[in-house]
Amino acid sequence: MHGISHLFIPGPTNVPEEVRRAMNIPMEDMRAPDFCDFVTPLLQDIKKAFRTETGRVFIYPSSGTGAWEAAITNTLAKGDKVLMARFGQFSLLWAEMATRLGLDVDLIEVEWGNGTPVEEYAARLEADKDHAIKAVFVTHNETATGVTSDIEAVRDALDAAGHPALLFVDGVSAIGSIPFEQEAWGVDLAVAGSQKGFMLPAGLGFLGVSAKALEIAASDSPKMARSYFAFEDMIKLNDTGYFPYTPPTQLLRGLRVSLDLMLGEGMEAVWQRHAVLAEGVRRAIAEWEGCRLVAAAPEWQSDTVSAIYTPEGVDARDVIFGAYSKYRTSLGSGLNKLAGKAFRIGHLGSLNSVMLCGALSATEMALRDAGAKITPGSGVAAAQEYYRAHI
Amino acid sequence: MHGISHLFIPGPTNVPEEVRRAMNIPMEDMRAPDFCDFVTPLLQDIKKAFRTETGRVFIYPSSGTGAWEAAITNTLAKGDKVLMARFGQFSLLWAEMATRLGLDVDLIEVEWGNGTPVEEYAARLEADKDHAIKAVFVTHNETATGVTSDIEAVRDALDAAGHPALLFVDGVSAIGSIPFEQEAWGVDLAVAGSQKGFMLPAGLGFLGVSAKALEIAASDSPKMARSYFAFEDMIKLNDTGYFPYTPPTQLLRGLRVSLDLMLGEGMEAVWQRHAVLAEGVRRAIAEWEGCRLVAAAPEWQSDTVSAIYTPEGVDARDVIFGAYSKYRTSLGSGLNKLAGKAFRIGHLGSLNSVMLCGALSATEMALRDAGAKITPGSGVAAAQEYYRAHI
Amino acid sequence: MHGISHLFIPGPTNVPEEVRRAMNIPMEDMRAPDFCDFVTPLLQDIKKAFRTETGRVFIYPSSGTGAWEAAITNTLAKGDKVLMARFGQFSLLWAEMATRLGLDVDLIEVEWGNGTPVEEYAARLEADKDHAIKAVFVTHNETATGVTSDIEAVRDALDAAGHPALLFVDGVSAIGSIPFEQEAWGVDLAVAGSQKGFMLPAGLGFLGVSAKALEIAASDSPKMARSYFAFEDMIKLNDTGYFPYTPPTQLLRGLRVSLDLMLGEGMEAVWQRHAVLAEGVRRAIAEWEGCRLVAAAPEWQSDTVSAIYTPEGVDARDVIFGAYSKYRTSLGSGLNKLAGKAFRIGHLGSLNSVMLCGALSATEMALRDAGAKITPGSGVAAAQEYYRAHI
Amino acid sequence: MHGISHLFIPGPTNVPEEVRRAMNIPMEDMRAPDFCDFVTPLLQDIKKAFRTETGRVFIYPSSGTGAWEAAITNTLAKGDKVLMARFGQFSLLWAEMATRLGLDVDLIEVEWGNGTPVEEYAARLEADKDHAIKAVFVTHNETATGVTSDIEAVRDALDAAGHPALLFVDGVSAIGSIPFEQEAWGVDLAVAGSQKGFMLPAGLGFLGVSAKALEIAASDSPKMARSYFAFEDMIKLNDTGYFPYTPPTQLLRGLRVSLDLMLGEGMEAVWQRHAVLAEGVRRAIAEWEGCRLVAAAPEWQSDTVSAIYTPEGVDARDVIFGAYSKYRTSLGSGLNKLAGKAFRIGHLGSLNSVMLCGALSATEMALRDAGAKITPGSGVAAAQEYYRAHI
Repeated sequence: MHGISHLFIPGPTNVPEEVRRAMNIPMEDMRAPDFCDFVTPLLQDIKKAFRTETGRVFIYPSSGTGAWEAAITNTLAKGDKVLMARFGQFSLLWAEMATRLGLDVDLIEVEWGNGTPVEEYAARLEADKDHAIKAVFVTHNETATGVTSDIEAVRDALDAAGHPALLFVDGVSAIGSIPFEQEAWGVDLAVAGSQKGFMLPAGLGFLGVSAKALEIAASDSPKMARSYFAFEDMIKLNDTGYFPYTPPTQLLRGLRVSLDLMLGEGMEAVWQRHAVLAEGVRRAIAEWEGCRLVAAAPEWQSDTVSAIYTPEGVDARDVIFGAYSKYRTSLGSGLNKLAGKAFRIGHLGSLNSVMLCGALSATEMALRDAGAKITPGSGVAAAQEYYRAHI
Repeated sequence: MHGISHLFIPGPTNVPEEVRRAMNIPMEDMRAPDFCDFVTPLLQDIKKAFRTETGRVFIYPSSGTGAWEAAITNTLAKGDKVLMARFGQFSLLWAEMATRLGLDVDLIEVEWGNGTPVEEYAARLEADKDHAIKAVFVTHNETATGVTSDIEAVRDALDAAGHPALLFVDGVSAIGSIPFEQEAWGVDLAVAGSQKGFMLPAGLGFLGVSAKALEIAASDSPKMARSYFAFEDMIKLNDTGYFPYTPPTQLLRGLRVSLDLMLGEGMEAVWQRHAVLAEGVRRAIAEWEGCRLVAAAPEWQSDTVSAIYTPEGVDARDVIFGAYSKYRTSLGSGLNKLAGKAFRIGHLGSLNSVMLCGALSATEMALRDAGAKITPGSGVAAAQEYYRAHI
Repeated sequence: MHGISHLFIPGPTNVPEEVRRAMNIPMEDMRAPDFCDFVTPLLQDIKKAFRTETGRVFIYPSSGTGAWEAAITNTLAKGDKVLMARFGQFSLLWAEMATRLGLDVDLIEVEWGNGTPVEEYAARLEADKDHAIKAVFVTHNETATGVTSDIEAVRDALDAAGHPALLFVDGVSAIGSIPFEQEAWGVDLAVAGSQKGFMLPAGLGFLGVSAKALEIAASDSPKMARSYFAFEDMIKLNDTGYFPYTPPTQLLRGLRVSLDLMLGEGMEAVWQRHAVLAEGVRRAIAEWEGCRLVAAAPEWQSDTVSAIYTPEGVDARDVIFGAYSKYRTSLGSGLNKLAGKAFRIGHLGSLNSVMLCGALSATEMALRDAGAKITPGSGVAAAQEYYRAHI
Repeated sequence: MHGISHLFIPGPTNVPEEVRRAMNIPMEDMRAPDFCDFVTPLLQDIKKAFRTETGRVFIYPSSGTGAWEAAITNTLAKGDKVLMARFGQFSLLWAEMATRLGLDVDLIEVEWGNGTPVEEYAARLEADKDHAIKAVFVTHNETATGVTSDIEAVRDALDAAGHPALLFVDGVSAIGSIPFEQEAWGVDLAVAGSQKGFMLPAGLGFLGVSAKALEIAASDSPKMARSYFAFEDMIKLNDTGYFPYTPPTQLLRGLRVSLDLMLGEGMEAVWQRHAVLAEGVRRAIAEWEGCRLVAAAPEWQSDTVSAIYTPEGVDARDVIFGAYSKYRTSLGSGLNKLAGKAFRIGHLGSLNSVMLCGALSATEMALRDAGAKITPGSGVAAAQEYYRAHI
């Protein structure tokens, strides 16, 4: 196979050359006297990507899944009641983890293609007069369906009900790509990972923790047994500019550069860039006869990933396999109940219009190879015209 | 500062150029149809470094500390009694984790500089007629003191007592560097990490699990709550050649090459190489007036790290700081009660005789700068003569 | 700017990741006892890309221009008569060099868009009964106009005339990409460079020399003063596996891998791949209203680069500048008399169909931005359909 | 073989990590509209390393040998008389090139170990009343013998004689490492290469040209035929921020960083650093029984390379081969008449004290393996004590 591979899965995302270079360094001494001079500003600057000032962001050597667990075990106790909704593979897995860790999950089933049912959340919170619900979980961006939920509305529901429950947000495929405001939205536990909007390889789990959640974690209230993910060790060492166990220094060096890129551009500009690239993709999809977004309504459409139903009779697995094997292009597969019915185009991270025109071309070719009767070039043309006007 | 940095901490270790190159790749699709063709043999080959055939080795996106936790939570339950000994910073931290996770730790205090008290272990196992002890923990190589314990002797003690307890081994600074035989020694849970003998950056925790431990993990017997580190998810996905959550693919590509290097050389040859380089270092230390190993007797001397007491009146922190700031050389610090009294030279991983002569030179200069009355070149000369004869 | 840059100039070409990795190595000793074990097979294998068995290929630390000079100074003398044709910027520069070095250039002017006038060559060779013409120069692939000449036909003309003149070929943008047969076609001096089909950075000039030319170079016949590019030093040292002056070892390591890639694929397959990708581009151009190839007839169309006239009233410089600054895509500019009138798409080296669909998209957008009335997506669609059928 | 290779040849030198990273980039468009924004300051800044303000520095895709040729062909004509001295392999090769290119070489033979005979030069210049001598050649640092000549004294001799001859300096292993002042010393043609003090791979030849030499080159006076190395093309394109033929962009990106490192440190500090490291090496050599410098007197000792006679009966080739094969350390070989009698330690470029202690250890081991009766550690000890006091 010749030329480059084309990666359009919704994470891990393409790593910019600057970040690759920053990671390609000899091993260093993570207890060197000046290592803290590197770590301390890093821990400050990642807070800017989460948009929190009074909280902390922990950096775990783990995947985002590990940060999910850290969020739960440090703030909740076995048997605690939590409110969750399930509308895709990742919200499903999160609920599964919560159950495994012993939480009492009040789970709302939502049809895939829709997102967090804010009104239902509001109703249950309103009804929970004795505050049995300890935490409300929201999947900000359901990566499996390309659906974005409204975090701010959930915060409003909590406030309207005067409910003290913690607000947990899975922002893995959102933070660093689409608008996210930990402080302004009162998010208590915000989970992210290195391999999406942060444009790094997988290997770091990020957890933004509000002042309120830090207080609860430090309090005597019952919590789960934990050690690797315990906040207290992280806090103690982070405050000196070090880590409680050997950190993946290469990834931290890469994070330094990716934060420099993001903050140098400005988070608002980063979000806007994602919105423009995503809209071009949607314009393309709209041209493909028989294809449609899994997102059930415009309000749910995600700017980081589009999940697309293939036309009747066209197996999405053929599209994905063909794109990969014939056109060296990785698309995201349809997960769980979407298997065979949908495929996904990731459009987050380090991308540009021409890369997406390539991805759309690969998709058009793979769709046609798989039997779809779309018009060649139709989607690319729509995307081109949108990009011409908006870049 | 000019020229290269010299890294002689006992991990993370120097990453070979071949491994660095293997990791410096564009991001790839960890769900690609052929990704399993890469993962399946990798999971087989890492078993060869652990010397196990009937067990499994799990690869976690975590530090070695995470693998400690995985070993405990998957096989033991809250309140289970375990036998441990504490003779350095890492055995101390492991015992602390066990306590935090709710184990009933039967802790034997051993003077630092000595290793696992096998006779005492044997006595307690013998006395434990009703098998209240569920697991025996052994720190194979105590990185803080440069002390290696005799795992095989602990196995013999278990067998002599006919005791069914699981044998846990912290092999983080041992496996891949000094003789380790998971299968032959009947080790049930063997913890390692990417950043020591495996010559990779930190970021992967390895856990070798015996068939017996796998069976216990899969059984209905009570265990701790766990999700991120749960064996069952790993087994299910690993069996298909994939991982339950996004793996750090770059590190896996690096692991492929480091395993190729290690297995290509042969584990016995790897161990022998470490033994020769270590002995050269000890010959040097023996020449330094007023210095001596923390290891209290030759039987405890580690071939992966030497902890060295500075002469009376010489603060080890000055040696370390001087080596780092004036000679661009990182030595390991004295941890906990050894702070200021000892420093460490890591001699594991990708090293050679000339690198160690450089490290010994830096140490000699830093020792003299810090006030030690050692003879310049004395240690280097002894190492040189040893290396000349044994390489 | 985000995402990757898109490079579609006709060289330097995209460097494959495997080659980049091979070049990213610590400096090595180019006089090490085993360096020859690397060089000797390299010098053999590069001959396979030139398709010569009885000749040699010299590797100069220079650009391709340096190899032009080496070819001339080692085999010709001041005042020697040579036959050349000028039909683009590179054949023009070559003729200029020949004049500067003191050759008596019999220069045939050909309208740009056409290639080597074989019949005219044949006529002049036929007429040259006393063999005053010492060498015949042919630009295999005129990079400025996207025109490929017929080397074999020139050889036939020489043979038909029974003419002993040396056959010089500028194969810089041909060798390694389109069919080239040094031995079979009786090419005496074949010039190439590292930065085109060989997929390396610039920095190596390659010169394939036939047995006949080597003999002339070694003979007592008058030649030009030369030192840096002298064959004799190269031959003497190359025969031992070394070089007469410090070679760019990183580039040589990269060359090893690029040859492995090319020869592993097979030269015929490499050529075929270029033909397919090129035809897709031409299908796209054919759809663009008002655009046409500079190549005046199908027989001249190059499979490594297409030069394209912009529609009336559209300044090609605007297209190029827009593609670069708005779409991060580098196209080739119109050189000399083509400035403003044409732009070029390089389609040689490490490319694939999706990369070219991206390049065509960028071109379509830039053309429309510059005022061209082409139909969006029209070219991409044609290319897609061609690639679907031929890959 | 494990661990890193140790490179202590007098060039190519160790490439700093920062420079390696800067070179490891995707291919770029060397005709991009903003490429000149990179090139123009680069061409200015390299002048600071040559210490010239009124001249130019040309950057050729070639080795340093190519820059030798460029210097001659652009300013001298066939038959011109030049004054040269021969006292090592590189001054010998330079004289050979001059002869080949048709110069009338007035060659002074000097015993190897000594440098440029300034008094003899002065005498001949004084005697040359009609200024038949067109140029005076000086090898600043004879890399084969580790001998540095006094350029300033040669300038004084020229001035004292009121002689207009051009002053050519081979500064390949000097410029960027030891004091060099093109402007102040009135050097007309100063040759350097990327692979020594500039800490880059080989592949760039640098040529500093004085205003006077530029004027001569541009004048109508007879010069040699030249094309690849012609000043006029370089001047024309460099003045626009581009190059006349495809430049090795990766090396230029590396040069940017190496100049940043050098100029950031300050040339005087760079020179001082070389002086300190060199003196440590000489202190070591002085301890080795039976060894002595090839440099015949302290005034000739080079701060970039030491050539060392092995003790009677010890073949230097054994030392070099042993160091390479057993200790992974590359030393420089004895060239020409020094073959078997001497070896060389390069101490220029990106080095530090601990690297040199390693090199000295390797040398001590290899010397003893080869039969030398030196005291182990003796040289390293002397170097250590010197470095302790002077770093």
